[in-house]
Amino acid sequence: MSETTAILQAAIPQAVRSEHDLIGDRDIPAEAYWGVHTLRAVENFPITGQPLSTNSHLVVALAMVKQAAAQANQELGLLDAQRADAIITACREIIGGKFHDQFVVDVIQGGAGTSSNMNANEVIANRALEILGHAKGEYQFLHPNDHVNLSQSTNDVYPTAVRVATIFGAKSLVSAMEHLGAAFAAKAVEFRTVVKMGRTQLQDAVPMTLGQEFNAYAVTLGEDRARLAESTLLIHEINLGATAIGTELNAPPGYSALACTHLAAISGLKLETAFDLIEATADVGAFVHLSGVLKRVAVKLSKVCNDLRLLSSGPRAGLGEIDLPAVQSGSSIMPGKVNPVIPEVVNQVAYEVIGNDVTITMAAESGQLQLNAFEPIIVHSLTKSMRHLEAACITLADKCIVGITAHEDKLRAQVENSIGLVTALTVQLGYAASTKIALEALATGRGVAELVLEHGLLTAEQLNELLRPERLANLSE
Amino acid sequence: MSETTAILQAAIPQAVRSEHDLIGDRDIPAEAYWGVHTLRAVENFPITGQPLSTNSHLVVALAMVKQAAAQANQELGLLDAQRADAIITACREIIGGKFHDQFVVDVIQGGAGTSSNMNANEVIANRALEILGHAKGEYQFLHPNDHVNLSQSTNDVYPTAVRVATIFGAKSLVSAMEHLGAAFAAKAVEFRTVVKMGRTQLQDAVPMTLGQEFNAYAVTLGEDRARLAESTLLIHEINLGATAIGTELNAPPGYSALACTHLAAISGLKLETAFDLIEATADVGAFVHLSGVLKRVAVKLSKVCNDLRLLSSGPRAGLGEIDLPAVQSGSSIMPGKVNPVIPEVVNQVAYEVIGNDVTITMAAESGQLQLNAFEPIIVHSLTKSMRHLEAACITLADKCIVGITAHEDKLRAQVENSIGLVTALTVQLGYAASTKIALEALATGRGVAELVLEHGLLTAEQLNELLRPERLANLSE
Amino acid sequence: MSETTAILQAAIPQAVRSEHDLIGDRDIPAEAYWGVHTLRAVENFPITGQPLSTNSHLVVALAMVKQAAAQANQELGLLDAQRADAIITACREIIGGKFHDQFVVDVIQGGAGTSSNMNANEVIANRALEILGHAKGEYQFLHPNDHVNLSQSTNDVYPTAVRVATIFGAKSLVSAMEHLGAAFAAKAVEFRTVVKMGRTQLQDAVPMTLGQEFNAYAVTLGEDRARLAESTLLIHEINLGATAIGTELNAPPGYSALACTHLAAISGLKLETAFDLIEATADVGAFVHLSGVLKRVAVKLSKVCNDLRLLSSGPRAGLGEIDLPAVQSGSSIMPGKVNPVIPEVVNQVAYEVIGNDVTITMAAESGQLQLNAFEPIIVHSLTKSMRHLEAACITLADKCIVGITAHEDKLRAQVENSIGLVTALTVQLGYAASTKIALEALATGRGVAELVLEHGLLTAEQLNELLRPERLANLSE
Amino acid sequence: MSETTAILQAAIPQAVRSEHDLIGDRDIPAEAYWGVHTLRAVENFPITGQPLSTNSHLVVALAMVKQAAAQANQELGLLDAQRADAIITACREIIGGKFHDQFVVDVIQGGAGTSSNMNANEVIANRALEILGHAKGEYQFLHPNDHVNLSQSTNDVYPTAVRVATIFGAKSLVSAMEHLGAAFAAKAVEFRTVVKMGRTQLQDAVPMTLGQEFNAYAVTLGEDRARLAESTLLIHEINLGATAIGTELNAPPGYSALACTHLAAISGLKLETAFDLIEATADVGAFVHLSGVLKRVAVKLSKVCNDLRLLSSGPRAGLGEIDLPAVQSGSSIMPGKVNPVIPEVVNQVAYEVIGNDVTITMAAESGQLQLNAFEPIIVHSLTKSMRHLEAACITLADKCIVGITAHEDKLRAQVENSIGLVTALTVQLGYAASTKIALEALATGRGVAELVLEHGLLTAEQLNELLRPERLANLSE
Repeated sequence: MSETTAILQAAIPQAVRSEHDLIGDRDIPAEAYWGVHTLRAVENFPITGQPLSTNSHLVVALAMVKQAAAQANQELGLLDAQRADAIITACREIIGGKFHDQFVVDVIQGGAGTSSNMNANEVIANRALEILGHAKGEYQFLHPNDHVNLSQSTNDVYPTAVRVATIFGAKSLVSAMEHLGAAFAAKAVEFRTVVKMGRTQLQDAVPMTLGQEFNAYAVTLGEDRARLAESTLLIHEINLGATAIGTELNAPPGYSALACTHLAAISGLKLETAFDLIEATADVGAFVHLSGVLKRVAVKLSKVCNDLRLLSSGPRAGLGEIDLPAVQSGSSIMPGKVNPVIPEVVNQVAYEVIGNDVTITMAAESGQLQLNAFEPIIVHSLTKSMRHLEAACITLADKCIVGITAHEDKLRAQVENSIGLVTALTVQLGYAASTKIALEALATGRGVAELVLEHGLLTAEQLNELLRPERLANLSE
Repeated sequence: MSETTAILQAAIPQAVRSEHDLIGDRDIPAEAYWGVHTLRAVENFPITGQPLSTNSHLVVALAMVKQAAAQANQELGLLDAQRADAIITACREIIGGKFHDQFVVDVIQGGAGTSSNMNANEVIANRALEILGHAKGEYQFLHPNDHVNLSQSTNDVYPTAVRVATIFGAKSLVSAMEHLGAAFAAKAVEFRTVVKMGRTQLQDAVPMTLGQEFNAYAVTLGEDRARLAESTLLIHEINLGATAIGTELNAPPGYSALACTHLAAISGLKLETAFDLIEATADVGAFVHLSGVLKRVAVKLSKVCNDLRLLSSGPRAGLGEIDLPAVQSGSSIMPGKVNPVIPEVVNQVAYEVIGNDVTITMAAESGQLQLNAFEPIIVHSLTKSMRHLEAACITLADKCIVGITAHEDKLRAQVENSIGLVTALTVQLGYAASTKIALEALATGRGVAELVLEHGLLTAEQLNELLRPERLANLSE
Repeated sequence: MSETTAILQAAIPQAVRSEHDLIGDRDIPAEAYWGVHTLRAVENFPITGQPLSTNSHLVVALAMVKQAAAQANQELGLLDAQRADAIITACREIIGGKFHDQFVVDVIQGGAGTSSNMNANEVIANRALEILGHAKGEYQFLHPNDHVNLSQSTNDVYPTAVRVATIFGAKSLVSAMEHLGAAFAAKAVEFRTVVKMGRTQLQDAVPMTLGQEFNAYAVTLGEDRARLAESTLLIHEINLGATAIGTELNAPPGYSALACTHLAAISGLKLETAFDLIEATADVGAFVHLSGVLKRVAVKLSKVCNDLRLLSSGPRAGLGEIDLPAVQSGSSIMPGKVNPVIPEVVNQVAYEVIGNDVTITMAAESGQLQLNAFEPIIVHSLTKSMRHLEAACITLADKCIVGITAHEDKLRAQVENSIGLVTALTVQLGYAASTKIALEALATGRGVAELVLEHGLLTAEQLNELLRPERLANLSE
Repeated sequence: MSETTAILQAAIPQAVRSEHDLIGDRDIPAEAYWGVHTLRAVENFPITGQPLSTNSHLVVALAMVKQAAAQANQELGLLDAQRADAIITACREIIGGKFHDQFVVDVIQGGAGTSSNMNANEVIANRALEILGHAKGEYQFLHPNDHVNLSQSTNDVYPTAVRVATIFGAKSLVSAMEHLGAAFAAKAVEFRTVVKMGRTQLQDAVPMTLGQEFNAYAVTLGEDRARLAESTLLIHEINLGATAIGTELNAPPGYSALACTHLAAISGLKLETAFDLIEATADVGAFVHLSGVLKRVAVKLSKVCNDLRLLSSGPRAGLGEIDLPAVQSGSSIMPGKVNPVIPEVVNQVAYEVIGNDVTITMAAESGQLQLNAFEPIIVHSLTKSMRHLEAACITLADKCIVGITAHEDKLRAQVENSIGLVTALTVQLGYAASTKIALEALATGRGVAELVLEHGLLTAEQLNELLRPERLANLSE
């Protein structure tokens, strides 16, 4: 909470201007670009201490939407060129990275994003006023609502900006996943001929190669990337022009199409206006879907990291198949201990993403009638999920996967000593006879091959061919 | 637990046959088609008392897979015609609905589906033995593992059967969703001109029509149907032929393609063999994805039902916009009370589906190395989700939506009396002046129109046109 | 869905009686003890096909509540002795196990439990009518609402019955947990001196005993049992007498206390009337709490089973510390493979319980104003969680824990060969020097002890004492 | 990610010192109190950009544990007075709020907290070196591991510090809940005689008072406070002295008891050493339990906020029972609209807490063998849940509850016009006759009382007494 106080105190110096809203008058720091609506919101939502500015994709996307709206309004004759130009310039500055520190509302906020929208309206209006040579707060010349928010409602601006920001975030995550996939694929090539025991239900099963195992990780992440790209497509459908509830009230004819075209150009994204704006205004299904896909990514990543931790368990009393690179000391008490800290941090990100999915689900289910008032927590949770997964993929690739080495000799010895080899003989011996051999091997500690020979079930030549590891692993030679 | 005992006791009569597995000998009821492996599983997993037979899609799908495998094995010269024919006949009988009561293993089971597969192997083997004129249990003539399970492993058979069963279930759900969507769409037409107040954040916003509101429900469910169909496509990718871990050990060359072709023909589904069988054998991502989509359906349905309960609240101290048809008495103490019991039951199904998604997520995340041992709970949860959603959609359509009526006069009066009308004047009056009118209306209880006239802000003609409900609702006339 | 049809069809024979509700007249099978309200509910809620009778604790608890109410009503002069006696007799028969098949409403139902309550009212009324020598349906002599439900509402009867049933279920689960805890404790004694490597983050850490490990499992389950008992205490607070919303409307003075006293006597439970009946009628916090505790039990059990599967991995390429008893063949393709199927089924139950907790959370959060309409899904989910956990504990104890054996020699060898031994020398050598020894051991494959001696850091005597496994494991000798 | 870079760049100036770990040498900024282990961790975990310093309770708690350990070590003769004093002084400075900016490791980190512990060890060591007149990094005089971490392991230090920090957080939350409960209780008194319709399933039920409704909110939050206090008690059990896995290796006899006593004195908390240190070291059940209780608090708060939003819906087309104070403009497009933004933000915090519970559940379930490596995400999630709930309670009390007003006349009129009044007549008229009256009232729009009189079912005097609102609401007069 102290952060909120800090925002306000740091921002309340000697010089102030007065602004007015439906509740009354309030002093605003003279140099602040935000205004009274933002001030109320900062006071009302002292939840996380994390301001909107920490979500730079969203700040940029809000400015893009405002710019697109100003362009459309000007072309439709609703906004004069002078004001439009000032607004557009202000938006471009924000898109370029300026004034982000003026987005001070908490990321968790009531009001369905109204405070985020008003924060944007006020910052843009005051910056535009400056550009026009007026003082901040002189809204008679250019008004946050009447001009910056013209033809708009929070209920179309905010969801649209959130979508644009989410697409940026998802693209970034897809790149990180490609990076990680490539790291796995490279190891798959490196370990192509390393024969090892495959395991099902943690029990020795039949042989495979370590390359096959790492290739499966690359493949599975590739599939997730495809799902993520598909899911992101759904988010390109926007409701800009819907205004309050989707009936386009106060937006002139042609506005929604024009604004969408401009926003597509500004953002470089293939955005489309939703077919049914009423449905689109109330619905957050696309975010639920995306979160479901992120959860799937998390599940896969976590499973892969569980495997990595298992395969590298040891060094002497574990599976000890591979070594992860040492990236830090593992223990404050046990010297020389090296822990799988990178997979562990990825696991934790996965658990967070899975929890976020439940948060998003509940927020989505709680939407009522013509609007979902809980989109801010959906956005906050989605943003965290995407960012943390992105960081996790990159750190996993760079700090762990690229440095993995294999204990080849040990792995081959385990294959040769395995009871699972008997599986390869069932076509010849039948299930019942094979079971007997397996049980005898288990009981005596002896090898499957020697028992088969001893019982005269197959010749040495037959055995040699049947049990060749490369054949067993289906390794094309 | 008593159900398990019942299964065993009902099934253990005087006449028995003896069967053998790696643990030892056991008596099996002479008339049982299942054998010793099934008996062990029934004893090991006395969890829900709900046998596999309750999932008839899965029983049928197991038989389809076994039939496809037998056909492929025969064509590849691994299985003689006599045995193949007997197995195929037995499978067709099961597909046709016979012997389902012989699938007695609990739906929640350890062993990655091995017990389900062995239950199928045993039932099919014993039925095939009968067809061939042998007694049940005479496995020397036709063996559950050596012949019925030939070229197969639980680890490819079970996931494949689960996919086929899931596709059947998903298609059925899509139909139910279409039925519900059509019910909403019909109401959208019926209520096309019923003007009402739209609400955001539960506060009066601006006018719309009840038809638009119901149409949005139809649209939103239509989108979900599309997502469900997309997600089901992913499930058409099978790993049949992968055998134990995806290396195709013990499956002859050409088997996987042939078996897939046969299974596609038998099931009528466009199945394809997965590109990477090792990945496909370990991965349950397609189920996680489908469950995520089912969760999205649940979220939407629950939101719609929340709306219906809200809009029909009353009869006198609620919103009272619509009446849901009375389908039962609402209260044991309050005479004449009618409750929204149908939406309520749909809400509950939605909560169950959302919980199932968490179960599936955890089970998926817990897969290790070359296999996910927890597929049975994934299947059980998915099946419940699909079935209960299907039932919910149909009962919602037939017992509720079709009978909904609207209080048209009340709704129109609320629009005319609304403060939200002032929104339609902001383009003319500006945000600040409009806010003043709104606050005065709120404080005095008077109407927006009369205050605007009294303050001389607009003429009566201007007002009439601006405030025409049909215009406000963007209702094309 | 076919099950519902089956209930109705099986129950609609030639002979019928006619009953009436606010919707109209319906034929009821003459021999059915349930009536028109039950029929409507069966038709309205064709969700799971699982009738209320499958929750026998709840059926019994409903009868107990009805009996207590009848006794209180009689003593307060509201119900004549003849009717009261008939009702009480009918209730006792149900408590004794009769007529459960007459509880046919689906376990997932709308209406906040009204249909369950009405099902009970109708069955009891019709059985009481029989006892009094009347025909079923002759409600003029004894009416389901006016007499059986006298002084009651679904909104106090149903939550009260649910609590009684839940207490029964929780007690049963506590017993099963005790049984499992005892099995772990017995193994802790058996393995008291089996020295092994402890592991943190799956890496070899420092020595301990297998007995300590199993003892920790017994302790952790014991703590959960204590939490479960605490949480069950909260459920002893009932709202019987609250009637519709907690204002006790239509319940005479003294009724709530008297009914509670009778119910306590009938059930043998220390029930108490809630202090604030309005809060108690709307609140389901005690179920949320209990479910949270069940989730904790599930988390612990799952963690323990994960450990057991890990420790028994192998037989040759895994940790191979312990063997779980073979309870069935592990694979349809890999002869002799034995899988940890019992821990696996417990894991799956745990995932289900964790998913149920989310379902319960959502249902609880969705309660509105004076009632939570979604208690049926809460009850259904809680009941499944408790029953399946109970079955899981018992099967885990009896089919797995009691038969676990240890590979003592291998475990001791691993300790002696361990790099983690160096930890025991850090007090003497310091963290930096110990790290060097550890890294050298790792690089060369040599033992810690020999390196310490070679470097002359300690004498052989010092080493012997410092590295004695029993000392390291803190094993009191 | 940029934040991480910022930490490192801001911190890497001209002057550096060199430090060494098992991987090699690294330059450390000369003025940094943290060392090479912290640097590695900052580089390895660039996940959230949120440093440990943002969790000031945890930073303080770590210092308290280190102080307690130093005191115990000194008393046991393991640490000389000079070093002990320097360490203790450094710890006290941190407890007093200094050097928090030196805790730079990311809050989401791999390694089971090792990096947090090492960050603390290094900061304390370097500050103690300064106090002793040495330069930072001169670890030959006072070593982070050999002296600051003496007799300790991350695996006992970190869980202990987390517990202490969690208790601080929980106490703070309990205070906020008391504050909110008092606000509800005050309103309950204010609205004591405001009669209104109670509602079940959103349908008009029977009368009550608004005071009863608000009192139930106060009561329900009071119960949650009690649960939270109980749950916090479990967290007072610590494993300090357990060292690596609970066997107390390297901690001298008497250490654990002594360190616990000191920590209790330093923190002012009634801490106790766990009975079984092996179980206590692996187990995170107390956090799962606490999170379950926080989830319960979230469920309750969310339900209450849902009610507040519903009761204040309108102003003209909603329930309109109460007005929430206006705290900001509600809409950027709809002038004068006031939205329930404070309850909305509380709902969102609740959804976050419920999601966090799933995260914690998964992290807890994933613990393996002797340790849970995922405690950092548990701590991070718990901390967010507690802090955000605390902020939510305070803002809800101060910005919303205290300013709520009621529409008394409207509420009384609704009671007098209600069909639910007929419930009060069922004892006299019977359920069947009452149902007829209710249906007639519903169909005709007439009042229950006039219909009863018209049908001659009761006299006016009888009716007047039976239907007196205060009697119906069970309002003691």
